[in-house]
Amino acid sequence: MPSISQKGRLMPESPIRKLVPYAENAKKRGTKVFHLNIGQPDIKTPQVALDAVKNNSIETLSYARSEGSEIYRTKLTKYYANHNININADNIIATTGGSEALLFTICSITDPGDEIIIPEPFYANYNGFSTASGVKVVPVISKIEDNFALPKIEDFEKLITSKTKAILICNPGNPTGYLYSEKEIEKLKQIVLKHDLFLIADEVYREFAYDGLNHTSVLSLEGLEQNAIVIDSVSKRYSMCGARIGCIVSKNETFIKTAIKFAQARLSPPTYALIASEAALDTPQSYFDDVKAEYVERRNTLVSELQKIEGVKVANPKGAFYCVAELPVDDTDDFAQWLLEKFHHNKETVMVAPASGFYSTEGEGKNQIRMAYVLKIEDLIRSVEILSAALKQYNS
Amino acid sequence: MPSISQKGRLMPESPIRKLVPYAENAKKRGTKVFHLNIGQPDIKTPQVALDAVKNNSIETLSYARSEGSEIYRTKLTKYYANHNININADNIIATTGGSEALLFTICSITDPGDEIIIPEPFYANYNGFSTASGVKVVPVISKIEDNFALPKIEDFEKLITSKTKAILICNPGNPTGYLYSEKEIEKLKQIVLKHDLFLIADEVYREFAYDGLNHTSVLSLEGLEQNAIVIDSVSKRYSMCGARIGCIVSKNETFIKTAIKFAQARLSPPTYALIASEAALDTPQSYFDDVKAEYVERRNTLVSELQKIEGVKVANPKGAFYCVAELPVDDTDDFAQWLLEKFHHNKETVMVAPASGFYSTEGEGKNQIRMAYVLKIEDLIRSVEILSAALKQYNS
Ligand SMILES: Cc1ncc(COP(=O)(O)O)c(C=O)c1O
Ligand SMILES: Cc1ncc(COP(=O)(O)O)c(C=O)c1O
Repeated sequence: MPSISQKGRLMPESPIRKLVPYAENAKKRGTKVFHLNIGQPDIKTPQVALDAVKNNSIETLSYARSEGSEIYRTKLTKYYANHNININADNIIATTGGSEALLFTICSITDPGDEIIIPEPFYANYNGFSTASGVKVVPVISKIEDNFALPKIEDFEKLITSKTKAILICNPGNPTGYLYSEKEIEKLKQIVLKHDLFLIADEVYREFAYDGLNHTSVLSLEGLEQNAIVIDSVSKRYSMCGARIGCIVSKNETFIKTAIKFAQARLSPPTYALIASEAALDTPQSYFDDVKAEYVERRNTLVSELQKIEGVKVANPKGAFYCVAELPVDDTDDFAQWLLEKFHHNKETVMVAPASGFYSTEGEGKNQIRMAYVLKIEDLIRSVEILSAALKQYNS
Repeated sequence: MPSISQKGRLMPESPIRKLVPYAENAKKRGTKVFHLNIGQPDIKTPQVALDAVKNNSIETLSYARSEGSEIYRTKLTKYYANHNININADNIIATTGGSEALLFTICSITDPGDEIIIPEPFYANYNGFSTASGVKVVPVISKIEDNFALPKIEDFEKLITSKTKAILICNPGNPTGYLYSEKEIEKLKQIVLKHDLFLIADEVYREFAYDGLNHTSVLSLEGLEQNAIVIDSVSKRYSMCGARIGCIVSKNETFIKTAIKFAQARLSPPTYALIASEAALDTPQSYFDDVKAEYVERRNTLVSELQKIEGVKVANPKGAFYCVAELPVDDTDDFAQWLLEKFHHNKETVMVAPASGFYSTEGEGKNQIRMAYVLKIEDLIRSVEILSAALKQYNS
């Protein structure tokens, strides 16, 4: 039998995937499962985007331009201008989700054996895209005690080698919910300029900044033009994950020219999704205000309910829609499986994401879980109630 | 300034892309350009697919399953059964176009430095995906004199090394239009079994087999189960290139499990496009009959018109919708640019794809072009008339 590639063997499996069969079995047994494990918002997609697709008059569904149409990219520049990011259409490549934006970025700036420094815990698929490219993820640990704030800049400095090509941050963070301050971004600017590195900022949760805090894009900093790369996506912004449209934004022309070559090889982003994404740019501000108010209420509920459980430590998220909690258990991989396999509370249980999948350092995060507050308030309250009962039973 | 990756520098640019500015300038000068250069059919997408999207009732546009829904994959098995390919839903991974199917396949079976043997001329993006993965394309030349039939099996044999992981064919071929016979596929079977290689068949043009000839899928051969991988796509079959849905099909479980990990990292294929693709499976046979009749007429016209020009040699394509011709010029890259930049015939000109981009061997195909017969009959006739006049003027 012909053999699989080394990198294929090394590719990580989704940390949640192995739990799926247990969740399916629980459902088969008649147990209701509250899904705190997913990054798929339950919020409605803006009507204007849905309508644009329903009202399309396509007769031949043709390829779009590899980097997205001039019209779409020009409209996007207005969206960015409203967020204090001044760019032009040529600084943008439309991609098939933020996922592809990450892949093209890594391909454009790294060769096998190169290194990217990433504060952990981080979005698990950074591992996947790095492995696919033969790139080593070098983690720098951030702490739940600090709400997962930026690690000390000396911690980054220590890890930089001749193979380091970039620092990658997620702002606001998945899974941490942490929103980097302007000061923190400034510190990152200094270190990437000093060492001639790219600073990649995954800003797909840009809209989700709470408590009156402002989001600082790496593209808004002067002097960082050649180093800053933004990963973006319509998935979370408009609750349209299934569209599969994202983009790369950078003022570094050589980088953009290179990334476009990868975009050309795969021909085109999806045409229907581009129609939806272009229309979504006309989403009224009231939509975002409502969504933000909803998430803030959910976060407040989730965090305050979790804090009532003895032995549970919660980071206070200022953005995105995730929250990491430390539980009084040794191994949340085991606990998460047990929740689905062995436990129920009045025929209901919860599915959570064990945090170990968000760490690259072996053994880190073993007692943490990530919860996404993508459920209605009453379901969140009920979920924490179940979790609380489960912890008692699991620990006895 | 931080530096671009080696592989980013090596990534080939689309061979047609460099001609685009010349075409745009020609249009600005008021010259009409007939596009024989593109792989985007002008044929209408089946109404049943277009309607399914227009009539969708989505409220939250969610991620699809990474490998495509069970329902979609099960329906696909029926489509394949009708084409003499017996598989089950677990043998299929839905991808974002045949493009992504190629990428995941190469990632799953090769590491940097590995080699894939491909008969040339071949679909130019095989180069792109290979370069992106650090894989070396090893070309084995096929000849216009033989209509680009399979090269002698000894020619393959000579090129196989310990680094060879697969033979990749395109059947029917882009750019050649050649349809491999069952005998030729049998020969490939013997050699891949002998050397424990994968046999990847890009069958995205499966439907387009003419003159009563049957298409032979590598999945229909007994004994090849562990070696055969099919790349497929809805792009050409239903003239819906903009959907961006394709798939990988293989009975090799280890391979499929590996490829799914790459699919998970990018989360999901596009949801609207999956709706269109699922509905497209109900396209009536009459649609394909009509499309095939149309392409056959176009091919006959194009080939016979070309044969009337002195010094032009044409391969007779039996499938797909491309045709390679040898012209009485030294350098079709120069000629194709000249057609757009310097020439017009009553304010009209043609854009063709220089064939050098479809060869990996330096210097091969310099006097060949690829034409796609994706234009109406009268436009094809006029295009060849323009080409004929252009050749006279260019050569004088
Ligand atoms: C931090 C982060 N980046 C990128 C993505 C990729 O999203 P998409 O490909 O849907 O744009 C996600 C999805 O969950 C994410 O959480
Ligand atoms: C031979 C061949 N394979 C694969 C593709 C990729 O097509 P898609 O990604 O649209 O499925 C094409 C497109 O032209 C092609 O010609």
